[in-house]
Amino acid sequence: MRFDVASELHYAVAAPSTIIFNIQALQTRIQRVVDESLVIEPKLVYEEFASTTGDSRFVRLETGAAKTLSVSYRATVDVEHAVVDAEDLSRVPVQELAHDVVPFLFPSRYCESDRLGRFAARHFGHLAATPHACVTAIVDWVHDNVEYVRGATDAQTSAFDTVTQGAGVCRDFAHLAIAFCRALNIPARYFTGYAYRLEPPDFHACFEVYIGGRWVLFDATRLVPLNGIVRIATGRDAADASIATIFGCATLERMTVRCDIAEGEGFASLDPAALVNAGVSLDGAA
Amino acid sequence: MRFDVASELHYAVAAPSTIIFNIQALQTRIQRVVDESLVIEPKLVYEEFASTTGDSRFVRLETGAAKTLSVSYRATVDVEHAVVDAEDLSRVPVQELAHDVVPFLFPSRYCESDRLGRFAARHFGHLAATPHACVTAIVDWVHDNVEYVRGATDAQTSAFDTVTQGAGVCRDFAHLAIAFCRALNIPARYFTGYAYRLEPPDFHACFEVYIGGRWVLFDATRLVPLNGIVRIATGRDAADASIATIFGCATLERMTVRCDIAEGEGFASLDPAALVNAGVSLDGAA
Amino acid sequence: MRFDVASELHYAVAAPSTIIFNIQALQTRIQRVVDESLVIEPKLVYEEFASTTGDSRFVRLETGAAKTLSVSYRATVDVEHAVVDAEDLSRVPVQELAHDVVPFLFPSRYCESDRLGRFAARHFGHLAATPHACVTAIVDWVHDNVEYVRGATDAQTSAFDTVTQGAGVCRDFAHLAIAFCRALNIPARYFTGYAYRLEPPDFHACFEVYIGGRWVLFDATRLVPLNGIVRIATGRDAADASIATIFGCATLERMTVRCDIAEGEGFASLDPAALVNAGVSLDGAA
Amino acid sequence: MRFDVASELHYAVAAPSTIIFNIQALQTRIQRVVDESLVIEPKLVYEEFASTTGDSRFVRLETGAAKTLSVSYRATVDVEHAVVDAEDLSRVPVQELAHDVVPFLFPSRYCESDRLGRFAARHFGHLAATPHACVTAIVDWVHDNVEYVRGATDAQTSAFDTVTQGAGVCRDFAHLAIAFCRALNIPARYFTGYAYRLEPPDFHACFEVYIGGRWVLFDATRLVPLNGIVRIATGRDAADASIATIFGCATLERMTVRCDIAEGEGFASLDPAALVNAGVSLDGAA
Repeated sequence: MRFDVASELHYAVAAPSTIIFNIQALQTRIQRVVDESLVIEPKLVYEEFASTTGDSRFVRLETGAAKTLSVSYRATVDVEHAVVDAEDLSRVPVQELAHDVVPFLFPSRYCESDRLGRFAARHFGHLAATPHACVTAIVDWVHDNVEYVRGATDAQTSAFDTVTQGAGVCRDFAHLAIAFCRALNIPARYFTGYAYRLEPPDFHACFEVYIGGRWVLFDATRLVPLNGIVRIATGRDAADASIATIFGCATLERMTVRCDIAEGEGFASLDPAALVNAGVSLDGAA
Repeated sequence: MRFDVASELHYAVAAPSTIIFNIQALQTRIQRVVDESLVIEPKLVYEEFASTTGDSRFVRLETGAAKTLSVSYRATVDVEHAVVDAEDLSRVPVQELAHDVVPFLFPSRYCESDRLGRFAARHFGHLAATPHACVTAIVDWVHDNVEYVRGATDAQTSAFDTVTQGAGVCRDFAHLAIAFCRALNIPARYFTGYAYRLEPPDFHACFEVYIGGRWVLFDATRLVPLNGIVRIATGRDAADASIATIFGCATLERMTVRCDIAEGEGFASLDPAALVNAGVSLDGAA
Repeated sequence: MRFDVASELHYAVAAPSTIIFNIQALQTRIQRVVDESLVIEPKLVYEEFASTTGDSRFVRLETGAAKTLSVSYRATVDVEHAVVDAEDLSRVPVQELAHDVVPFLFPSRYCESDRLGRFAARHFGHLAATPHACVTAIVDWVHDNVEYVRGATDAQTSAFDTVTQGAGVCRDFAHLAIAFCRALNIPARYFTGYAYRLEPPDFHACFEVYIGGRWVLFDATRLVPLNGIVRIATGRDAADASIATIFGCATLERMTVRCDIAEGEGFASLDPAALVNAGVSLDGAA
Repeated sequence: MRFDVASELHYAVAAPSTIIFNIQALQTRIQRVVDESLVIEPKLVYEEFASTTGDSRFVRLETGAAKTLSVSYRATVDVEHAVVDAEDLSRVPVQELAHDVVPFLFPSRYCESDRLGRFAARHFGHLAATPHACVTAIVDWVHDNVEYVRGATDAQTSAFDTVTQGAGVCRDFAHLAIAFCRALNIPARYFTGYAYRLEPPDFHACFEVYIGGRWVLFDATRLVPLNGIVRIATGRDAADASIATIFGCATLERMTVRCDIAEGEGFASLDPAALVNAGVSLDGAA
């Protein structure tokens, strides 16, 4: 499937700032950036770099004396998810996890899995032997118990808060599901992307779990088809994969985000709920 | 300086468990393991591996049917810290940070730097231009405002708690200092080690900050000479560098830890407070 | 029903302290203290007083130079709960609540009802029109989702914590149920007492809600028959009705608590679960 | 001193709601309401009542089918504070506190004094023998360490948060100072009022402590002269003395508050900082 994605961010800059952006489509085994452009206004020197582990691309720039800043990105991206059978997604014992997967068992800033152990065990522990069913139950629970409410949370809201507060945006849905998975010793990581027909248009956040020897994609918001997501970054949680990290003083004034099927392509829409319930999963591995 | 270090951990195992240990001395540019041994009783198959970023060594084992487990490690280690002049430790602008240093600016499970911004700015913000003086002031504040009290905290206590609760152990001192540093855009990471003459003997935790283009070692507890620490691991916080992470059900029953000067060596004891106050610092870089 | 109740508390006193005890059986419309004695060793001057609102009796003493302190209380108490039909327990609109009931709608230290609104509405909101069924559902939920675990919580644990941590003692069960009730505009208060055959013997905590124009007793732990409780105090939460509040430095070393049926009395044991499920309730009004 | 005070609150009402207002000037030993009026639009039936302890006046009404609601209050009030010498304000031992004062030693929803004990002891403990100096030091600390920032906090922010977050409005200043006082066994309560020349005009919150056998007024914001405050209510914290408690669904759309010297009166302006520093205090007792 070929997608056209684009984003534009406009900032007011009150003082010279360094900003790290994380908005570019990733090159992965299943995702290919056919064509892309990045335009920064005014013309500032910037640097591109990838994270040590290759799961994020960053743009770092200094605003200098600029009072405003706009960043425009667009790309054409091919994505070919593998559809895998849930029955093949067996538990990987901790003992057999690849070394770079182990850290995704640990708690992180927004995913305090260490505080959710009893809750996770009570609600999902009986499914521990069948990890795909377990994660599906977690997604169901988060979907049913967290209401999608803009403005109900802020940048400091964590999974522990969301269990009880029961409201949030995609970021909060992902953090809570990740925390539950880790509490049950299922490696889980945060995932940001452009999402086909997300309403209202915005960057999207969902998550991946490591089962059956691969990273499988889930979205507890169920707002978009899983195969309609173009990956930007993965990380432990939003602290690693923030769209923009500002060191200084700049305020986002306006943002547009877009994700469409490229011209000439059909799109066998995949109902996200149906997909999960059918035991079909997408290999999203980098 | 040559050190003899050793640790012994004895567990009661209630159910088959996987345990990841992080107790071996690290090989770094300034630290050389001359000789070491690891004995596990009963004889279990285990695997050794290093973290992706090379800053931790792990031993992973499955207890199987064993009802008890003991892990004994000993090593002879040479450590040669460089002593650097505080005046040379200038701020590294975010724009110039090496890519693998950037993540140590972000909040983590136990170091919620995002929630401490105003507090850090009020207390230490005036020193932002002179990062060594700034970190020294942070160490002073933590040392003066946090009381060393065993049992006052638990595995879930975070930097945000410690600001107000004002009590904890070395782990809590390190987490709070790290969070303050990150809140001021100084990269900071957690550091565990064997510590010369720590009383009572235990594993030790302190921290490093990235200033002047190198990782410099600090210890807000001031319980041991800085050049008397043999590095085990570094990480974002204790979630990354836990001595033992247990997946299953095992209980630590008894532990001994030892760190001595190797025979035939003198030790120019370095008073930790004097060291810091003199503007002398130790390059602890891996 | 006539009960013999007793408690003995032994303290080590490290520095001269003032202690307020709240361990005496209350005189209420349905509870009569037939006979009681209070012995304090060493012989210290103490003062007895009742709370402004008459729902607690306090003993206040100064330890002076004493290094140990023991307080022994025993009483014979008649309690005659009214059994009321759940169908008669209709909602009292906020508009019609008696003035001294209104404060029990507000959040308190351990019952942050203001933070549990969405959770309570999602789980119990559909029952708001039938308050007895609503409180019964709350009791069911707390009973099913909170595990009785000694040592899992401490004196600072609140209802917000317990929702997620899912473990605690009677005090935590009561706080959480109270917080849910208040979040749904049902007045609720904390209740301490001696409890028949509580195992292991201890002071007990449960709660009351104001429905149908009376205070009705509930116990989310379901550890004791509801009509086997002799009231000591009511308050907003444990901050008001603490067994002992210590100003100074004294440590509880040993405690015994007892609650038996008085000789010659039968006891039509009332299974707590059955009682609630049958829609039978006890008027516990002071 | 004679004051003219007034407030107007306009609500949009989405569903039939019960609202309890707490906006009327109190009658106390030192405060006399000469003249007042309350106008509610549309004309709804309402009830006035006082709290059990006489320290608040409430107006309770049901909106019924009304889609909007406006409440207008105005009053002329005489207030005669006694100015007392700080030297006369000695500590009242817990043992000698009047019974209705004791509850103001306990933690409450927004004043978790139980969690601030160590912090309070470290910063203010050395002044415990001279309570006026102690409270003055607390006021200084709060004033110096908390920034007055509208919008930095919300209705769930508590004293524990404010210690570290270091920002808030008058309500947060009062909660934190109260929590510190209680942690040091000085009874403290929350106080709302109309405040002379508060900028921007709003209801004000400050606090009282019980020292020297009387309730003495303090204001950690130092935004208004202490003798320019007309008392509305006292309580444990904002949970007891909220301006408006809404049961249902109504949104404040517009509010005006005013507090002026009555015509013909002079006003010996009292600089709040000077007042406190001079060791002069105001008896605000009800």
